[in-house]
Amino acid sequence: MKKYFAELFGTFWLVFGGCGSAIFAAGYPELGIGFVGVSLAFGLTVLTMAYAVGHVSGAHFNPAVSIGLWAGGKFDGKELIPYIISQLIGAILAASALYFIVSGKADFESIGGFAANGYGELSPGKYSMQSAFLAEFLLTMFFLLIILGSTYPKAPKGFAGIAIGLALTLIHLISIPITNTSVNPARSMSQAIFAGGEYLTQSWLFWVAPIAGAIVGGVIHKTLFSKD
Amino acid sequence: MKKYFAELFGTFWLVFGGCGSAIFAAGYPELGIGFVGVSLAFGLTVLTMAYAVGHVSGAHFNPAVSIGLWAGGKFDGKELIPYIISQLIGAILAASALYFIVSGKADFESIGGFAANGYGELSPGKYSMQSAFLAEFLLTMFFLLIILGSTYPKAPKGFAGIAIGLALTLIHLISIPITNTSVNPARSMSQAIFAGGEYLTQSWLFWVAPIAGAIVGGVIHKTLFSKD
Amino acid sequence: MKKYFAELFGTFWLVFGGCGSAIFAAGYPELGIGFVGVSLAFGLTVLTMAYAVGHVSGAHFNPAVSIGLWAGGKFDGKELIPYIISQLIGAILAASALYFIVSGKADFESIGGFAANGYGELSPGKYSMQSAFLAEFLLTMFFLLIILGSTYPKAPKGFAGIAIGLALTLIHLISIPITNTSVNPARSMSQAIFAGGEYLTQSWLFWVAPIAGAIVGGVIHKTLFSKD
Amino acid sequence: MKKYFAELFGTFWLVFGGCGSAIFAAGYPELGIGFVGVSLAFGLTVLTMAYAVGHVSGAHFNPAVSIGLWAGGKFDGKELIPYIISQLIGAILAASALYFIVSGKADFESIGGFAANGYGELSPGKYSMQSAFLAEFLLTMFFLLIILGSTYPKAPKGFAGIAIGLALTLIHLISIPITNTSVNPARSMSQAIFAGGEYLTQSWLFWVAPIAGAIVGGVIHKTLFSKD
Repeated sequence: MKKYFAELFGTFWLVFGGCGSAIFAAGYPELGIGFVGVSLAFGLTVLTMAYAVGHVSGAHFNPAVSIGLWAGGKFDGKELIPYIISQLIGAILAASALYFIVSGKADFESIGGFAANGYGELSPGKYSMQSAFLAEFLLTMFFLLIILGSTYPKAPKGFAGIAIGLALTLIHLISIPITNTSVNPARSMSQAIFAGGEYLTQSWLFWVAPIAGAIVGGVIHKTLFSKD
Repeated sequence: MKKYFAELFGTFWLVFGGCGSAIFAAGYPELGIGFVGVSLAFGLTVLTMAYAVGHVSGAHFNPAVSIGLWAGGKFDGKELIPYIISQLIGAILAASALYFIVSGKADFESIGGFAANGYGELSPGKYSMQSAFLAEFLLTMFFLLIILGSTYPKAPKGFAGIAIGLALTLIHLISIPITNTSVNPARSMSQAIFAGGEYLTQSWLFWVAPIAGAIVGGVIHKTLFSKD
Repeated sequence: MKKYFAELFGTFWLVFGGCGSAIFAAGYPELGIGFVGVSLAFGLTVLTMAYAVGHVSGAHFNPAVSIGLWAGGKFDGKELIPYIISQLIGAILAASALYFIVSGKADFESIGGFAANGYGELSPGKYSMQSAFLAEFLLTMFFLLIILGSTYPKAPKGFAGIAIGLALTLIHLISIPITNTSVNPARSMSQAIFAGGEYLTQSWLFWVAPIAGAIVGGVIHKTLFSKD
Repeated sequence: MKKYFAELFGTFWLVFGGCGSAIFAAGYPELGIGFVGVSLAFGLTVLTMAYAVGHVSGAHFNPAVSIGLWAGGKFDGKELIPYIISQLIGAILAASALYFIVSGKADFESIGGFAANGYGELSPGKYSMQSAFLAEFLLTMFFLLIILGSTYPKAPKGFAGIAIGLALTLIHLISIPITNTSVNPARSMSQAIFAGGEYLTQSWLFWVAPIAGAIVGGVIHKTLFSKD
């Protein structure tokens, strides 16, 4: 059971820290953290919890990662459903906590788009669905290559948490303007549920593109980089 | 005795570096470091002193951390009082040094709120007491989960200083707009003493919420993640 | 064969992440990542792929690095051509993906200079050819000193990926205003091909200066720092 | 001899990268790196060269550090003069290269204050001599505590380069507005020579305060933290 709790707490932290930094701090007048700060925050949620509970659950915190690790032959298919359920519960609890906190702001009126993902009209920089799909696909594919590569027995021991966490920072540095950056269906759902409307309608892409990218990443690693 | 000096110097560095970067550099015209720089500074005070004196005292630098480690079964209750006293002395000495330096600025008039923590009218983004309490509680709880998890025998050796330091960076990236970020009663007291007035009245929250969060974090780690 | 794929994927990631962050996110209104974010992104592409595929190919991702390692006596000359070809293919494929994504932006008109390198009129800060040459030469020379030094048997094990990745971040923090920062002919060519015109004419400098610097760096390390 | 070359190259890199990032990139319109980027750059010069040549010379790159290590009993007094001479040569060569590059800028008129340090009227934020002295003293004292602590045999192996490099980043995050941050007489001299005038007159403080702080830091470590 404790590995499911580890995934729940870890995904809570990812959404609370990553989306929370975006909601509370990104656009603060003059001193706000901008996309650099949000990118750093997302990466550090994974870096910190990877060292805290990586030895318990493997520190996926992301349904696409669990599926990609299964495609790469490093995760038991029977664990997929309980892992994904734990991740979704953690993500939604975190979004609820964010909602409670932000609604206590003196000038609070509505959450607007929360930190939801989107394409076309809902893309921060108005990127098309096709652009959004390719970006999410490629970024999740490389995320899996980095996860599988840095945890491979021949890679230096202990450094994977740094490489994987900072990979998520890098992914956000590239793509917040395109889709607000998902690469993680649990993170996307948790925000779309609160943002509602068109954000919910578009959430299919943030399941399909990351999971497709993760599977391709897993298969590439297995085929090209895991034999000697 | 040397562990008490380590806590004193470490907490001095946390307040001098973290609060100092906020006071001197955050709002500098055009080139200022903003909340991203302050967040980085707080985290790096802990990262650097964790490697410097972690082997001496455990590198708490924070009464809530000492109490949370005790709740998690990793710290002797008899050491709590001398550790907390050392931390408070270090924090107040640092605040005094900051006061001396800032009062030497050509256009110095008053310290205003120094780098004190607050809620409601004293929250940078005007967040309510309830929002402030939940934020401080959850952030300190996760801080303890990361401290206890990354120093657990099964976690990679040597990396805890990175994970714990960058966790404090992450915590600031999320919550400076909410409470100016405490998660540390010694840091809060040192600033409230100088800021005075309402800041001092509100300082109870920055004892209660972080300590409550730290205890819950300690108990969660002990219950869920420290058995095999 | 798998080492050539590792170089191809790694150089794809370097161009997609580094140039992509510049194209999509650097100048985003108010919240954009600026040169700090782009510098971080370039460095993290190398840091992340160094841990992911460093044990496969050595993680060069850069023709100047391959040539500098050969000059330093750490890379077999017979591998130079296939490595450089793999790097160029990866870089150009990444530039194509960037082109596809950016052309899906609602207000897309042209790529302008893409993330191409330049000097004189094409230098972001209008630095002369001589300044550009010296900067690229020195930065690549030190890049090689860091690569060869941090992977030397007496250096701490496992940390080279951090030192080398963050060296590329540092190099960008210094020199984006001078040349838009190359130190990597594959990265430069991939952008010049799309930017065309004068950018293509100037691309000779971003082969000659980095390669000359890399060779001098390799020779200095071999002569001064690799004997006991 | 090779350790003197290591100090020369390392101090060149510290000045070229740290001061260079300030001169070229800090104030670039809209996209400039500001004090956060400069702080990161200074720290990364030390982090990268610590892994590259730390096993050759110990990676001081700073006369105050060499003197503080001698005061702490970790450096042979006979090496002090050749180390400091190597550091000064490296620093001045780097300043010369910076001068060459910046004078090739199309709109170049004069170097102004270069990246020189100062107090009073020459302090970026107009801090008094007393404030400047205390800041430089305390920051260098803690720098030595971190250097001596993180390289102590009981500290985790290999991480000192990260702790020490990021300590320099932290020091800059705090104090650029106060003195433009020295903690390093070689770095200060190299800039004052080019800036001239009052900058040169004030350079005494950037020898005395850092060296005094370094000696106190060395003695504190030896007295309090290096016995068992």
